[in-house]
Amino acid sequence: MKNLLYAQSGGVTAVINASAAGVIEAARASGQVGRVLAARHGLVGLLDEALYDTSGLSADEVARLGRTPGGAFGSSRLDLPEPENDPAPYDRLFAVLAAHDIGWLLYNGGNGSMHTVAQIAREAARRGFPLVTVGVPKTVDNDIEGTDCCPGFGSAAKYVATSMLEAGMDLRAMASRVGRAFVLEVMGRNAGWLAAATALARRGDDDPPHVILLPEVPLDRARFLDEVERTVARIGYCAVTVSEGVSWADGTRVMEQNVDAKGYVQLGGAGQTIARLISAELGYKHHWAIPDYLQRAAGHLVSATDVAQAHAVGVAAVGYALAGRDGMLPAIRRLADVPYRWDIVPVSADEVGNRERLVPAHFIRDDGLHVTPAALAYLRPLVEGEVPVVFEGGMPAWRALDLPLATKQLGRAH
Amino acid sequence: MKNLLYAQSGGVTAVINASAAGVIEAARASGQVGRVLAARHGLVGLLDEALYDTSGLSADEVARLGRTPGGAFGSSRLDLPEPENDPAPYDRLFAVLAAHDIGWLLYNGGNGSMHTVAQIAREAARRGFPLVTVGVPKTVDNDIEGTDCCPGFGSAAKYVATSMLEAGMDLRAMASRVGRAFVLEVMGRNAGWLAAATALARRGDDDPPHVILLPEVPLDRARFLDEVERTVARIGYCAVTVSEGVSWADGTRVMEQNVDAKGYVQLGGAGQTIARLISAELGYKHHWAIPDYLQRAAGHLVSATDVAQAHAVGVAAVGYALAGRDGMLPAIRRLADVPYRWDIVPVSADEVGNRERLVPAHFIRDDGLHVTPAALAYLRPLVEGEVPVVFEGGMPAWRALDLPLATKQLGRAH
Repeated sequence: MKNLLYAQSGGVTAVINASAAGVIEAARASGQVGRVLAARHGLVGLLDEALYDTSGLSADEVARLGRTPGGAFGSSRLDLPEPENDPAPYDRLFAVLAAHDIGWLLYNGGNGSMHTVAQIAREAARRGFPLVTVGVPKTVDNDIEGTDCCPGFGSAAKYVATSMLEAGMDLRAMASRVGRAFVLEVMGRNAGWLAAATALARRGDDDPPHVILLPEVPLDRARFLDEVERTVARIGYCAVTVSEGVSWADGTRVMEQNVDAKGYVQLGGAGQTIARLISAELGYKHHWAIPDYLQRAAGHLVSATDVAQAHAVGVAAVGYALAGRDGMLPAIRRLADVPYRWDIVPVSADEVGNRERLVPAHFIRDDGLHVTPAALAYLRPLVEGEVPVVFEGGMPAWRALDLPLATKQLGRAH
Repeated sequence: MKNLLYAQSGGVTAVINASAAGVIEAARASGQVGRVLAARHGLVGLLDEALYDTSGLSADEVARLGRTPGGAFGSSRLDLPEPENDPAPYDRLFAVLAAHDIGWLLYNGGNGSMHTVAQIAREAARRGFPLVTVGVPKTVDNDIEGTDCCPGFGSAAKYVATSMLEAGMDLRAMASRVGRAFVLEVMGRNAGWLAAATALARRGDDDPPHVILLPEVPLDRARFLDEVERTVARIGYCAVTVSEGVSWADGTRVMEQNVDAKGYVQLGGAGQTIARLISAELGYKHHWAIPDYLQRAAGHLVSATDVAQAHAVGVAAVGYALAGRDGMLPAIRRLADVPYRWDIVPVSADEVGNRERLVPAHFIRDDGLHVTPAALAYLRPLVEGEVPVVFEGGMPAWRALDLPLATKQLGRAH
């Protein structure tokens, strides 16, 4: 029997290991797979022939892996060149796969990684290398085309929405005549899905978030400040969500507006810039929060729906691999909002790779400063359900895996 | 029977309402208290005669209040002048208390608020006004003197330690040859308790956080960078916790180093400044997270120990009030680390008000860049235990109280 190689790619999520567990469990259950190997730090480890052997994991350990946040085997952001431009990495890649008798490669990542799936599938076919390459979708950005949602997003969405709910309760308690503004900066360079998700904190019109700034909508400074001012006049405070990638009307990113004393443009400050803008123009007290990695790593507050979907795409990807569906990925298809029903359908990696699925216009309120009921109907089921976490001494009891590496068969890559 | 007035002061916490619930429950159980009123936005509402009447709350609603984060009645940061300098606010305060037949005032706040307790107690005695004033301690900063720990701290500590654990798992997955640094900025202007608490994320010497920068230790730039560099050389990444109030060796606060293009000094950027310093000096990829309000509002991840203590000081404060222990507050006394045992003892508000309890020297590692085993032994029990949260539709099901205000008896304050 051939072996199966699984690799993680791009930024990790709180539930990517649920996909890994799904892959291992389905491969074992199939009776058609030899060993399941997992590349250390994704493509970097694959090219370096650093492959963990998961054979020694008990069923309990695999289940525990599936409930552990972060990328258990490590990930990386390495991309491959197009094979016609530079075949060398592919020579090495196929040499490693051949040396370890890999018949199936499962690559777990975002839209860039789906492009890599298509590249490897195409080049393997051209070379006549016996390999089935299958994508496993994941990204907290929720921006892969061809799937209704992306594993990893629902949990990050639950985290940022809960954070906004909690910060809002704090703000309400501290509201005063001087006015108070709070800005939550969430991930999303081009797609505002996580920012939109904070709307789930809202129960009534006066509840936070009062404004949501999406990268899909050029920021109209005057209109934005007017909305903040009217909110504070009404209730004494205003909570704003801002996507890290939001841009001004002239196309400049807000985060690039932080010019330091030496004239250097410094990235990474959309939340801070917006908070200071409010303070400078309206005179309110201002705070900003930047969860950064915390929002994609929060294993203590995952969505059960998201965990189930992450696991299911791992299982489905093994099925696709064994069925020879080369260059495909399992996508999530929504069948109904309430009660939420979904299934999994195959999508071509070549068709979705390197594309970005943005928040559509009908999810964005006409004034561009909030989301619509349609967006909430889309978002609600994705954060549903909780997963119990085992604590020890007051802290989550997650443990890193201690796995052996498969014996190297090749020399070092040149 | 006289009525009891409860007021919240200063920044709220995830468990301050557990103290409120303890106060209401104990007052009702005593049979010696008429109505329990609660000032809207603390001292602001007291002077404005905006007092909620909690009489209509069912026992279930009081219990639910005790599990809700944020300040249910609102808080404020108003301080009183010394009465000999400006008696006017005291004239108004005692007029309101008299109009509502208040015999007991319970004031729930930090070290500044304990000073207010002492001021009011002293002035009431001087005027012969029949009032017992009792403090109820709370602060995520853990910096009130005379108590082993402060309600609110344990939950914020659990949140920041869990955040560091999770971010660390993400970092480990993404470690690469280029080197990666992550900085978590936590609250603490002068006292580094929350920063120290992130050490609870650590299981082995190579686990995050690798460096903890406390406001108690002047930051030695060269020594700090050396520690970061050696950590990255060893494991490929480095996670740093920084207190918002950390200072350079010359006494300048790190957060005041952000000078913008116009030459303005802007506060609030210790995490960003440290992350950029690492990037500029060592060339690593850098990220920073600033949980800001999220760390003190995170009702979804509270410490059961903290909730129990917050509730207990509320109950004890009613006992002190009824016993006529004017100007006192219930403090937590540690009896044993393992298994953790504690009780409650009376402390004079006048002795602890406006003082700050810093992280002691024996909790700080000799090089000033981390904490000691003694600090961990102190911190561990404070984050222990979890409290189930009720979710609805994937979000915590907290609801704001809908309480009537007591009818005003006085004209507006002049």
